[in-house]
Amino acid sequence: SSNKRVLILAGDGIGPEVMGQVERVMEWLSARRSFSFDVQSGLVGGVSYEAHGTPLTDETLADAVAADAVLFGAVGGPQWDSVAREARPEMGILRLRKEMDLYANLRPALVFDPLVEASTLKDEVVRGLDLMIVRELTGGIYFGEPRGVETLPDGTRRGFDTEVYSAPEIERVSRVAFELARRRDNRVHSVEKANVMESGKFWRDEVTALHAADYTDVALEHMYADNCAMQLVRRPKQFDVIVTSNLFGDLLSDCAAMLTGSLGIPSDEGGNRKALYEPVHGSAPDIVGQNLANPLAALLSFTMMLRYSFGAADDADLIEAAVQDVLAGGLRTADIMQDGMTAASTDAMGDAVLGAL
Amino acid sequence: SSNKRVLILAGDGIGPEVMGQVERVMEWLSARRSFSFDVQSGLVGGVSYEAHGTPLTDETLADAVAADAVLFGAVGGPQWDSVAREARPEMGILRLRKEMDLYANLRPALVFDPLVEASTLKDEVVRGLDLMIVRELTGGIYFGEPRGVETLPDGTRRGFDTEVYSAPEIERVSRVAFELARRRDNRVHSVEKANVMESGKFWRDEVTALHAADYTDVALEHMYADNCAMQLVRRPKQFDVIVTSNLFGDLLSDCAAMLTGSLGIPSDEGGNRKALYEPVHGSAPDIVGQNLANPLAALLSFTMMLRYSFGAADDADLIEAAVQDVLAGGLRTADIMQDGMTAASTDAMGDAVLGAL
Ligand SMILES: CC(C)[C@H](C(=O)O)[C@@H](O)C(=O)O
Ligand SMILES: CC(C)[C@H](C(=O)O)[C@@H](O)C(=O)O
Repeated sequence: SSNKRVLILAGDGIGPEVMGQVERVMEWLSARRSFSFDVQSGLVGGVSYEAHGTPLTDETLADAVAADAVLFGAVGGPQWDSVAREARPEMGILRLRKEMDLYANLRPALVFDPLVEASTLKDEVVRGLDLMIVRELTGGIYFGEPRGVETLPDGTRRGFDTEVYSAPEIERVSRVAFELARRRDNRVHSVEKANVMESGKFWRDEVTALHAADYTDVALEHMYADNCAMQLVRRPKQFDVIVTSNLFGDLLSDCAAMLTGSLGIPSDEGGNRKALYEPVHGSAPDIVGQNLANPLAALLSFTMMLRYSFGAADDADLIEAAVQDVLAGGLRTADIMQDGMTAASTDAMGDAVLGAL
Repeated sequence: SSNKRVLILAGDGIGPEVMGQVERVMEWLSARRSFSFDVQSGLVGGVSYEAHGTPLTDETLADAVAADAVLFGAVGGPQWDSVAREARPEMGILRLRKEMDLYANLRPALVFDPLVEASTLKDEVVRGLDLMIVRELTGGIYFGEPRGVETLPDGTRRGFDTEVYSAPEIERVSRVAFELARRRDNRVHSVEKANVMESGKFWRDEVTALHAADYTDVALEHMYADNCAMQLVRRPKQFDVIVTSNLFGDLLSDCAAMLTGSLGIPSDEGGNRKALYEPVHGSAPDIVGQNLANPLAALLSFTMMLRYSFGAADDADLIEAAVQDVLAGGLRTADIMQDGMTAASTDAMGDAVLGAL
């Protein structure tokens, strides 16, 4: 059939709660709109570790590779803190990223007008904010070798990791950033610590060369990562597209997510062919099972899937409009609650989005 | 004599401008108060490179080691962007840190009431904020070996760096954090990426062991660096003392600096015996020579010197009160200017502080 094959990996913590709301919207779409889904589910993270002794089985990985797209919830929780590194929940998502070759992670920070008030930043600083972080996702210190803990001849113990980027790795993720910029405001900030890191200097040189060769029509600026962290808080609207390493992207995108007034932003992890969509809020162990989680970032991850993996911009627009309506109507989950608004549970938020649809 | 020997390394960009105001206050102190200074000056950064072909000469390093304390301005600027890494302005401060063994960098983020309005964060989020970041300063990826650019047998080029922390390095900087916490709100957050980095897991284990051995009276929490970047924007007042690596400390302290409503926070780089004091605003090439720079962070760095290197808390209090008075009176340099306030140049700000004294 021409059904779209979607693998849902809800994972740990609030993952299953928010994915439950996404499934409801998928059912609505299947019933009312042009195309439908073959939905399959699998385990990832701590729940997979409990069931199979590993955070991702080879079978689930094969299912992910075979699917047209993957919807990912969240992984991790304090109950697995003492598990050996190779078996930790986080290794489930890291292995998916690596084996599916998801080298470009798009993390938009977009401020919806009804949520401006929920930001800890002042209205004028964030209203209308629309920036995109392109985070390299399959390289750098997350995967670099050698890594480990060793004991020196004098008995001193030390832990170490390797930050490493090759020219092709830098080029392919930078191309994604330049191409995106062309469809946006045509500006790219490349972020590193070229002043203290050799890999940072190398990153800067490679981006500069690629820009000169193929993207002179895009405005390119280089910025140190510490300054970028500062500028995201000081004047975030100066940015259009930011491209950076796996590690800097991890910190900077979480910082940028906070500007939006919501705990979660949607995230599109893509690369050669496949893509995985994930809300960036994490597993939130403190609110698990209480029907408190905000399903909107997961829903917006799903709309990114519709738009970018399935070319279904109409359906994506429809769902995004429904989300906007619900927010404009004053409904808020606990994480974005404010005076004068109406408190909503996870389910109630899902009901409202379906209602608006 | 019992004069305090202070080496001033004003450096590049606005360094000399802000240090000029500090020198005026030092002269006032020498004339009016109990002790006096032997002030010596030296070159560091780009200006040293221009004069001597190196960002720090052995002679200046020896002067720094011989001094009772060092006052540092800023280094760097676009004119040295293409200089080889070993000769870059930044290597001047990195070499000082390493050779003076300045392993613990104290970066307070303190919100003065008159500056609450200047923060891009909402009043209630930052008013009364008083947190301290303890950044490891002589280890990690800033200095780790191997590092460089290499060509693989298949012709692929790549740049690489090594993040590495030994048990003694983690222990000594963590002790500084725990001791500081005891004199503050008795809480420490240790920040790393133990979920993806071996050195992060090692850092967490070592801090946990030290805490269990000597600091069970201090509340210790572990936090991932991405979450910390998020929490600094979301709810910064949850923190008392944060201890972290050189690289994470670089990003997180710049982010925290922004919360204070000022571009610059004072910074105390210390360790075994010596200390170096530095405002964290950088060389600000865009406003050099225009009498626009804000000298207050440099002045507050100097008060940290009085307090921590010379035990002159009275004098430090006096100068801090003068700074508070000037701000309460409505005077503002361009970086913190707001409606209804009075614009002041670098010199005028210095005049006002001297006037208040
Ligand atoms: C869960 C963790 C391994 C992951 C990361 O560090 O990449 C997460 O923080 C993220 O940003 O997706
Ligand atoms: C100038 C630079 C080398 C330095 C650093 O990265 O440590 C600066 O950003 C700082 O934070 O003091």
